[in-house]
Amino acid sequence: MKTITVNRNVLSKNDEIAETIRADLTEKGIRMINFLGTPGSGKTTVLENVLADPAIDKSRIAVIEGDLFTDLDAQRMAEIGVRTVQLNTEGACHLEADMVQQGLAELDLEGVDTIVVDNIGNLVCTAAFQIGAHMRVCVASTTEGNDKPLKYPNMFRTADVVLLNKIDLLPYISFDVDKFIADVLSLNPNAEVYLCSAYKGEGLEPVVQIFAGV
Amino acid sequence: MKTITVNRNVLSKNDEIAETIRADLTEKGIRMINFLGTPGSGKTTVLENVLADPAIDKSRIAVIEGDLFTDLDAQRMAEIGVRTVQLNTEGACHLEADMVQQGLAELDLEGVDTIVVDNIGNLVCTAAFQIGAHMRVCVASTTEGNDKPLKYPNMFRTADVVLLNKIDLLPYISFDVDKFIADVLSLNPNAEVYLCSAYKGEGLEPVVQIFAGV
Repeated sequence: MKTITVNRNVLSKNDEIAETIRADLTEKGIRMINFLGTPGSGKTTVLENVLADPAIDKSRIAVIEGDLFTDLDAQRMAEIGVRTVQLNTEGACHLEADMVQQGLAELDLEGVDTIVVDNIGNLVCTAAFQIGAHMRVCVASTTEGNDKPLKYPNMFRTADVVLLNKIDLLPYISFDVDKFIADVLSLNPNAEVYLCSAYKGEGLEPVVQIFAGV
Repeated sequence: MKTITVNRNVLSKNDEIAETIRADLTEKGIRMINFLGTPGSGKTTVLENVLADPAIDKSRIAVIEGDLFTDLDAQRMAEIGVRTVQLNTEGACHLEADMVQQGLAELDLEGVDTIVVDNIGNLVCTAAFQIGAHMRVCVASTTEGNDKPLKYPNMFRTADVVLLNKIDLLPYISFDVDKFIADVLSLNPNAEVYLCSAYKGEGLEPVVQIFAGV
């Protein structure tokens, strides 16, 4: 019982900070995109491919990487020449608004109009915590199985865009694409659902267009 | 700051309940195994295959299924004729000891010597919460990428057994098996690491032997 009460307070305080972040970024003409998904769904690989697309002006993009302890993903972003800051949660399973606020303070936002937050791999708590983003992109993957929307509904209910990644592996696994899409849309009729293979660099045009501000 | 203090209290209270559960089960000659892993790593498919093995006496096994809202996995267990109880956390990202205690109260444990807890898909908080189990099995999968042990070290540091699942997909993806095993052992030199494909029903003999009490 105590836990529930405490979480409500934490969430309420968190949402206030998130609202401040969002208002501040909006005023500066900057969009923030929250990248969410299970560990290994391919969030960072999608980002690598999209940011390397010739249609993207990398000087306009900044990335906030969320991880528990390592800076492995920030290294991947730095290698492709994008401004990056690494947030380490020291064990917490999701980013909170005040962590993102600290990350934003470390970033040089001169000329930036799009910030991507590569959240911690988690289908539960990352969906519960607002971080001040204007858009949520959930990267799911075929190898997770098509039961995930119904098992983790909050994630799919709150996503603006659902990317179904690893479609190159469909011939080798049991996965019902139609059921996956139908389940996502039953939870969230306004979700945009796209199929892609970040590993093969295929199907990422819709994300490139989002990042390019089209 | 408040959150950290509260979590400590919650964890300490949780660990007390877990200790009670473990002592009680030990006295009754029952082992409890905590099955952990990311969403879609194949925990339930591993269980389905292992429980269907002729070497397993299903009347000696009981399963506690953990999920946020659905009973999809409990249905899969019921279909193979194993005593099952479903725990729904209503949104919480991990099982806690008091939830497992409630599940145990609902199970008929007559003749049972092994209880499996099929935990919520999560690489972070599930590892932080003791539930009174005697053994932890982490089901990882090749499609998650070989960087997961270093990115989610608490999970791999506390696992007694690490199953690397979906090895049938190795020809189609980029995954360094040697690095994965080396990273697991660097975090946890005593971990037993096995390779398997639950989808193909291959490599599950070590888990069958654990369940058969060999």
